[in-house]
Amino acid sequence: MSGNSIGKLFTVTSFGESHGPAIGCIVDGCPPGLALSEADLQHDLDRRKPGTSRHTTQRREADEVEILSGVFEGKTTGTPIGLMIRNTDQRSKDYSDIMDRFRPGHADYTYNQKYGFRDYRGGGRSSARETAMRVAAGGIAKKYLQQRYGIQVRGYLSQIGPIRAEQFDWDQVEQNPFFCPDASKVAEMEAYMDELRKAGNSIGARINVVASGMIAGLGEPIFDRLDADLAHALMSINAVKGVEIGDGFLCVEQKGTEHRDEMTPDGFLTNHAGGVLGGISSGQDLVASIALKPTSSLRLPGQTVNRSGEPVEVVTKGRHDPCVGIRATPIAEAMMAIVIMDHLLRHRGQNMDVESGLADLEK
Amino acid sequence: MSGNSIGKLFTVTSFGESHGPAIGCIVDGCPPGLALSEADLQHDLDRRKPGTSRHTTQRREADEVEILSGVFEGKTTGTPIGLMIRNTDQRSKDYSDIMDRFRPGHADYTYNQKYGFRDYRGGGRSSARETAMRVAAGGIAKKYLQQRYGIQVRGYLSQIGPIRAEQFDWDQVEQNPFFCPDASKVAEMEAYMDELRKAGNSIGARINVVASGMIAGLGEPIFDRLDADLAHALMSINAVKGVEIGDGFLCVEQKGTEHRDEMTPDGFLTNHAGGVLGGISSGQDLVASIALKPTSSLRLPGQTVNRSGEPVEVVTKGRHDPCVGIRATPIAEAMMAIVIMDHLLRHRGQNMDVESGLADLEK
Amino acid sequence: MSGNSIGKLFTVTSFGESHGPAIGCIVDGCPPGLALSEADLQHDLDRRKPGTSRHTTQRREADEVEILSGVFEGKTTGTPIGLMIRNTDQRSKDYSDIMDRFRPGHADYTYNQKYGFRDYRGGGRSSARETAMRVAAGGIAKKYLQQRYGIQVRGYLSQIGPIRAEQFDWDQVEQNPFFCPDASKVAEMEAYMDELRKAGNSIGARINVVASGMIAGLGEPIFDRLDADLAHALMSINAVKGVEIGDGFLCVEQKGTEHRDEMTPDGFLTNHAGGVLGGISSGQDLVASIALKPTSSLRLPGQTVNRSGEPVEVVTKGRHDPCVGIRATPIAEAMMAIVIMDHLLRHRGQNMDVESGLADLEK
Amino acid sequence: MSGNSIGKLFTVTSFGESHGPAIGCIVDGCPPGLALSEADLQHDLDRRKPGTSRHTTQRREADEVEILSGVFEGKTTGTPIGLMIRNTDQRSKDYSDIMDRFRPGHADYTYNQKYGFRDYRGGGRSSARETAMRVAAGGIAKKYLQQRYGIQVRGYLSQIGPIRAEQFDWDQVEQNPFFCPDASKVAEMEAYMDELRKAGNSIGARINVVASGMIAGLGEPIFDRLDADLAHALMSINAVKGVEIGDGFLCVEQKGTEHRDEMTPDGFLTNHAGGVLGGISSGQDLVASIALKPTSSLRLPGQTVNRSGEPVEVVTKGRHDPCVGIRATPIAEAMMAIVIMDHLLRHRGQNMDVESGLADLEK
Repeated sequence: MSGNSIGKLFTVTSFGESHGPAIGCIVDGCPPGLALSEADLQHDLDRRKPGTSRHTTQRREADEVEILSGVFEGKTTGTPIGLMIRNTDQRSKDYSDIMDRFRPGHADYTYNQKYGFRDYRGGGRSSARETAMRVAAGGIAKKYLQQRYGIQVRGYLSQIGPIRAEQFDWDQVEQNPFFCPDASKVAEMEAYMDELRKAGNSIGARINVVASGMIAGLGEPIFDRLDADLAHALMSINAVKGVEIGDGFLCVEQKGTEHRDEMTPDGFLTNHAGGVLGGISSGQDLVASIALKPTSSLRLPGQTVNRSGEPVEVVTKGRHDPCVGIRATPIAEAMMAIVIMDHLLRHRGQNMDVESGLADLEK
Repeated sequence: MSGNSIGKLFTVTSFGESHGPAIGCIVDGCPPGLALSEADLQHDLDRRKPGTSRHTTQRREADEVEILSGVFEGKTTGTPIGLMIRNTDQRSKDYSDIMDRFRPGHADYTYNQKYGFRDYRGGGRSSARETAMRVAAGGIAKKYLQQRYGIQVRGYLSQIGPIRAEQFDWDQVEQNPFFCPDASKVAEMEAYMDELRKAGNSIGARINVVASGMIAGLGEPIFDRLDADLAHALMSINAVKGVEIGDGFLCVEQKGTEHRDEMTPDGFLTNHAGGVLGGISSGQDLVASIALKPTSSLRLPGQTVNRSGEPVEVVTKGRHDPCVGIRATPIAEAMMAIVIMDHLLRHRGQNMDVESGLADLEK
Repeated sequence: MSGNSIGKLFTVTSFGESHGPAIGCIVDGCPPGLALSEADLQHDLDRRKPGTSRHTTQRREADEVEILSGVFEGKTTGTPIGLMIRNTDQRSKDYSDIMDRFRPGHADYTYNQKYGFRDYRGGGRSSARETAMRVAAGGIAKKYLQQRYGIQVRGYLSQIGPIRAEQFDWDQVEQNPFFCPDASKVAEMEAYMDELRKAGNSIGARINVVASGMIAGLGEPIFDRLDADLAHALMSINAVKGVEIGDGFLCVEQKGTEHRDEMTPDGFLTNHAGGVLGGISSGQDLVASIALKPTSSLRLPGQTVNRSGEPVEVVTKGRHDPCVGIRATPIAEAMMAIVIMDHLLRHRGQNMDVESGLADLEK
Repeated sequence: MSGNSIGKLFTVTSFGESHGPAIGCIVDGCPPGLALSEADLQHDLDRRKPGTSRHTTQRREADEVEILSGVFEGKTTGTPIGLMIRNTDQRSKDYSDIMDRFRPGHADYTYNQKYGFRDYRGGGRSSARETAMRVAAGGIAKKYLQQRYGIQVRGYLSQIGPIRAEQFDWDQVEQNPFFCPDASKVAEMEAYMDELRKAGNSIGARINVVASGMIAGLGEPIFDRLDADLAHALMSINAVKGVEIGDGFLCVEQKGTEHRDEMTPDGFLTNHAGGVLGGISSGQDLVASIALKPTSSLRLPGQTVNRSGEPVEVVTKGRHDPCVGIRATPIAEAMMAIVIMDHLLRHRGQNMDVESGLADLEK
């Protein structure tokens, strides 16, 4: 399959550029009978939407999704679900002075090398604008997983630059513009971001995602392990440079006795593994963490070259996020939900006649 | 596709358990005309092979690969290449006392939950034994990339538990049993491992992989980005819990001005991105890093449950690696080579008629 | 991949029902640099469009396609091309009396069995309305193949019920509402269809498709043979019940000496094979033929059951084609073009460095 | 995926040439818990095996399959099943005089054009020898379908050259070397084949395949219809030039009233559709028919060219089947079983929670 699809049985295929007429996707493989309307998807789209606080880009998009197919009388029919969002606030003029120069840290140069030319308006296909469709598609997966299995996929921002969340309260996550679970750090984050924005610079962030209420048995050996597919899905998000499952890089310095999660008749004692053993879900919480780089769209000038290879300076004047991580929480949730959903369908296909004679250790 | 395949145009599909008659794979999509013999693959197989130093498992496998098809008169024909290694030193008796209990940190429990029962001999399909076929298949990709494009894929161990390589010399990597590029740390690593083995414990490690001589333009937006596919491939290696591209998790605390790689007519000034921008290779070195957890096969007893859900204790008596990271370097190289190879073929398919009117900034 | 996609490197994924808001598709993998506008696709859409003669359904759809992405400054960018057609003339009321009964010969019963319920308006997803998107997507492939390689994909109706085309003139094909290459049969076909329509019955047809100017080497052993993928693509068209390559079923009674296409330095002497040997194109014309069943939407009553399993009678009152074959020519062309395009990209990926030291026997 | 794989959830990937060391395949996605041994597969391998009557090639292969993985304690584990058959009776010398000339009707020319050179020994990868692995893999699918669902896949030869089976008795099919269901025609077929063999010529054939005991609901709209995937699978068999589902090409001359299968509370009244409506199984028998061309390996000389493009004559001296259709019955059965199996798993994945409130009309 070409590169704009993800998933084998629950497949999302997307299209659209930052400044084209519309962005959209096709969700193929959703089980029939799920109650679904635009309203179900709008909540997460609004969480991701730009312009909701002073800490994100001031581009204003309604991001109203339209369901074009696959739903009849309020329920999914089992046929592909077409989704579309019209682009509205495009301001193509902002980008005219970068059409011939490659912004450092952006995909300008590589798209140009790959395709011979590029749609330079707002990054074209490489813009994070496409992530709106991930959120819409992921919303379908989230709803199915919740309704049918009670699986809940949630994320939060655990660090922004030097500031780490230290306390944890799921209820706080939706109460601040950062998706930060530690209310005591919000003021510090706001001050930090204000200063950064004033300086014209940007900063990285770390997002954590967790699926709770998981069922055991999802994931296929050898290459399509649940964690491997999750790494793929999360690393495919713009600006992500690292992915961890469970303890992640902490493992490097752990001993076997520290890391292995012992079991008792009441379940696992710990969850260093992050809910995956041998690439297959254990029923514990599925836990992943990602690193997002600082955006490269800065008001501070940088050296680069133009299409003729001559040295030039570049300054980004358009509207941009000083921390792309801030809006990434719903995107990461969507990707995790899509991966779980795909593996759920695959698992049911191959293994639905396994007699489950075993006690389920998680319950 | 079911889970035992990787790659879209250069596809590797594998089979085999730790203690079955043989392990093998099919490499489909290798271009015709590549000179290839078993000897080309044996070098990396020997690098991965158990029992070559006292720091790895004492299981002894000849790991002699047989090419069963796809090569005629010493050259690949373009048809699928069948590869097989017979298992020889199996000692199934070692595993009889764990057939009914789930070793903590292993895939015993999850395989059982997924499939209803499991091949308990040496981990069965979940054993790292299958990685031998990755190395064999990756050897074909490595040779093609090197011969046809001058791309070289190499790896090294950068950290084992608390001990980090600080100096760097590619020539040292093959001179010690750890693939460590810092000769001055080898003695320390040896002492550390001896002590650990004596204690019956295990430790994590970090491996870095680098492709040099890269060409620009490899990788497909949106989901099949080069870095996303690389994350998938590396996370699919047994025991891997984290993947970084370029600066990875360091990005969380970086500012945009630090991270973005500026360009001049002579090329990029830095490589924080690790050779990928917008999911497409830039021509710079492709750089990835992985975290491997400590193996959970320990001589130190751990709590677990048996298939009936009763609490039991487990001690692993079989032969195991106290640090699975030690043998992981050739595996990580193989996975990177497979991913680059697949994307190379995909890129050529879609883009071979792009006029390359641009100066190649990397040369 | 789920079932609404076709192609591996040139991938078409479609959505949409007969009476939903819109139908659409995503064409992923189109090479960059192809001049493309809506006008390029409209010609074939108009050839397929209903309501252009009295011999097809009187549903009137403008079938105006909108390109939503993937084209910038008049050229394809290499990124996915989103296409959409709004449904306009829907008349959902026509279908209310069949919502609970399964029309014989239609997909009503099987959709109901598969999904538990169905969108009964005009056949929903099973309606031939979705073929409009195949034609749009195929138009992109046709243009690329023509522009870049001089490959031309054309089709014609060779038989309708008992009436066969006996003379052959490509120039006649577009001169009559049947795509019939034999002008002398058109009056007979018109009279036959008028009578059939009056009787409320329907009839089958045979369509032939030919790609000329082919290049040799397209197709992958073993399962992804060019002819096998073509059979898949053509059999996926609504109402198709048979596919032949070259001589097709005539082979059953042929001897080897009759069938084998001998070669001379000037090329092949015959083309019984239909342009494919061992699943790979020979450079000769690629020739396929398909059988389309008579539509089952009849004004003549038929026995069936309702959702409760009770016997009922069904009469179709909606607007329908008395011979679905009449509009199938552009659809069959589109499917052949998509298959060739996909194999072209795959072939280039794997084999672009084959030295072509051989004289090309076809030129 | 590259071309040597078929199926999405039940995936068969094969390798091997006519005269290489071995042929083999990997069956990925088989559900766990199926009792399986080599003996289960050997019966169909023996039915396909050459040299069992004077009417097939005199090459003698034991065709003893070895299960290399995926089975533990006599049951499938859910992990990939590696299968291998060593080639034994190879006689490479027979082919030395065709190494530089392209046999008409064979894949010699097209492989050469595609790959730049070819393995000329016995057709290499293009030899029908690879079909042994299809039969072995299909045997697993057949067993699962039979054991778990009572679905039985059987085939027969319905025509050889001018001689058609007119009576039908499943019990006769295994009683003669042709798989002919009409005992009264066997003597005629034997005489016809003896004469043909004496003349050094070959002949085409028609094979029918039927799955009985089918369940409704298998097949995915739009492109992965059950019939489309079946057409793909059957057309991928060597020498197949045509595929029909149900009435096939008879549809061209049928009226809607003749073709549509009416329903009553007791089930369908007829089965013109061949068990598929809208690409989804109806629960009726799944019925397909294929045309096989006469083999092009003849003792009668034919014109061709050599690799230098010079005119030469070719005579095939090796051992060949005068009618490849004779051994094709188990191959066609295998392909149908693989397709049903794959769709069964896909269907279960997507639709397992459909409430089946409907009366099953087939029972």
